[in-house]
Amino acid sequence: MDELFVTTVVTSWKQIVNRLDERLASLDNEQLQKQIAPNRNRLFYLLGHLTVVHDRMLPLLGIGERLHPELDEAYLTNPDQTLSDPLSVPDLKKAWSEVNAAITSAVEKFSVDDWLKKHTAVSDEDFSKNPTRNRLAVFLNRTNHTSFHTGQIALAK
Amino acid sequence: MDELFVTTVVTSWKQIVNRLDERLASLDNEQLQKQIAPNRNRLFYLLGHLTVVHDRMLPLLGIGERLHPELDEAYLTNPDQTLSDPLSVPDLKKAWSEVNAAITSAVEKFSVDDWLKKHTAVSDEDFSKNPTRNRLAVFLNRTNHTSFHTGQIALAK
Repeated sequence: MDELFVTTVVTSWKQIVNRLDERLASLDNEQLQKQIAPNRNRLFYLLGHLTVVHDRMLPLLGIGERLHPELDEAYLTNPDQTLSDPLSVPDLKKAWSEVNAAITSAVEKFSVDDWLKKHTAVSDEDFSKNPTRNRLAVFLNRTNHTSFHTGQIALAK
Repeated sequence: MDELFVTTVVTSWKQIVNRLDERLASLDNEQLQKQIAPNRNRLFYLLGHLTVVHDRMLPLLGIGERLHPELDEAYLTNPDQTLSDPLSVPDLKKAWSEVNAAITSAVEKFSVDDWLKKHTAVSDEDFSKNPTRNRLAVFLNRTNHTSFHTGQIALAK
């Protein structure tokens, strides 16, 4: 029973990531350099941003070291078009896939207890006051964050 | 333990709906009539669309009759600007809040068993083959659907 609950949550994550992957697969390199709307982020920036945020889930969920900390400056610390893109389109797509594969592989092994442990950015004291600040909360938040930007990427023509 | 898992899921839903409510509260009636990007849906249409989709969660999750079936034609069956808006801005905002309140109130009473029951749009046979087609899956899907359109609404200036 518990297992089914957990499987449903991980299935939702996979669906959201897969839907974005399908959209990305239909866009060529030129389209990825376009802005989602006038004076807004480029699709490529959003892909970099999502890669950074997912990469940071590895230490946050306590499942591993970061794979691509070199992307933070370009896609998290700074707004779009401040710095040049550190990776090519195929290399960024590869990083995106690697990071998601690492997360999926780790969380598929999580028990219900694992999901309810605190994430690493909350203190023991804060967690004891609010036990919903757990790994599941981070995972659901990041799944919704991916959906948020997928909605923007879907506007690309 | 089970209870905490369920609380975390419902907390995530509330956060996503609240974030959209905060954005909507900062927009006046004129801004709601604007398109999110050139030749794209108006914000008001997206609010109508989300209200319809959430309203349909009531029968889908087996928690009640629909409250606003009169919105389907304008915001689900037809694209934006095909039909005139059936409700004023305050009335649509009220419908949106009513529907979400009904969902939240019902799911807060769900046990783990309730979450893992089949939703009403899947047959017994299909559900027995794939038990992840449960109410939790619908709930996570719709939470992400709200995030998808919130990302678009966030582009409004």
